[in-house]
Amino acid sequence: AFAANTANPENLSPIYGVGLPDGYRKWELIAPAQEAEPLNELRAVVGNDIAIKAYRAGKLPFPDGTVLVKLAWKHTQSPEFESASIPGAATTVQVMVKDSKKYAASGGWGFGRFINGKPVDQAQHETCFACHEARVKERDYVFTKWAP
Amino acid sequence: AFAANTANPENLSPIYGVGLPDGYRKWELIAPAQEAEPLNELRAVVGNDIAIKAYRAGKLPFPDGTVLVKLAWKHTQSPEFESASIPGAATTVQVMVKDSKKYAASGGWGFGRFINGKPVDQAQHETCFACHEARVKERDYVFTKWAP
Ligand code: HEC
Ligand code: HEC
Repeated sequence: AFAANTANPENLSPIYGVGLPDGYRKWELIAPAQEAEPLNELRAVVGNDIAIKAYRAGKLPFPDGTVLVKLAWKHTQSPEFESASIPGAATTVQVMVKDSKKYAASGGWGFGRFINGKPVDQAQHETCFACHEARVKERDYVFTKWAP
Repeated sequence: AFAANTANPENLSPIYGVGLPDGYRKWELIAPAQEAEPLNELRAVVGNDIAIKAYRAGKLPFPDGTVLVKLAWKHTQSPEFESASIPGAATTVQVMVKDSKKYAASGGWGFGRFINGKPVDQAQHETCFACHEARVKERDYVFTKWAP
């Protein structure tokens, strides 16, 4: 987890200008997830208060101001317990910010993918909306459901 | 996630008298985990403020008042994305409460395992400390490390 420094434009994602939000590591858990090879990651999606409220109410679309953050780590064998896997090194942190006016061209969402606190390149940011749109448009472009 | 009702002794674990703590679903994430077959679960360990403070400070043993909760769900294939797995139905919620006097006989920890908000039987609660002691005694009987 990295401290946000959104004053520096270098820390903002290409295309969208999304930065790492302040204090996201403390946000409430929406759900864990796992991604198989080749990425081989354990993940956790967390949200700000606006996001959590919308999830708990079960209402779509998410309101402006919603921020979703996906933390990801290498999926690593537990040294103490054979059948358990635990987080290894942090890999990417991914962000979706809802602003239906600013991001009208991408379903109301701005996207950012960060490695070691720095945004990845423009080519990677060109893939975000396309995938989310193709697969979960009817859920306001959000994959993750609330873990009961 | 179930509402805590620790006034009713039926809701407390055998041996330890541990109940589901209030509001644990909102607690800060310590780390996700995965458990292979036969349990086949995605998990998330969260902690109360005392726990989080101790983790961030990297200090052992955990102080009295520490509460750790492990949420667990069936590990389920994502319907929208082949390589992703997501939480299915909730399975167990497990709790560890630190009280070095009350639980002196079990390393200072009281244990509780809950299904649908109700504690499981005494036989299951006889296994908790034995396993945690055998494998992670030197980390104050706690497996889960902070996810970076
Ligand atoms: C090839 C498909 C694909 C691409 C490309 C993709 N995503 Fe996703 N994204 C997913 C899937 C599947 C999930 C849910 C499962 C998981 O957690 O991995 C997800 C989840 C997320 C989440 C958590 C909220 C949600 O929708 O569940 C964020 C935030 C996110 N992606 C951001 C990004 C960003 C930023 C980019 C581009 C830099 C991106 N995604 C590109 C497939 C994709
Ligand atoms: C056979 C071994 C074993 C037994 C028995 C066992 N545990 Fe654990 N426990 C683990 C392992 C391994 C982890 C960490 C990986 C994970 O999250 O599954 C863990 C994690 C936990 C955690 C999260 C904090 C930590 O130590 O990481 C709690 C809370 C917990 N167990 C409670 C219980 C309770 C309550 C019981 C008995 C009803 C119990 N455990 C029995 C192996 C065991």
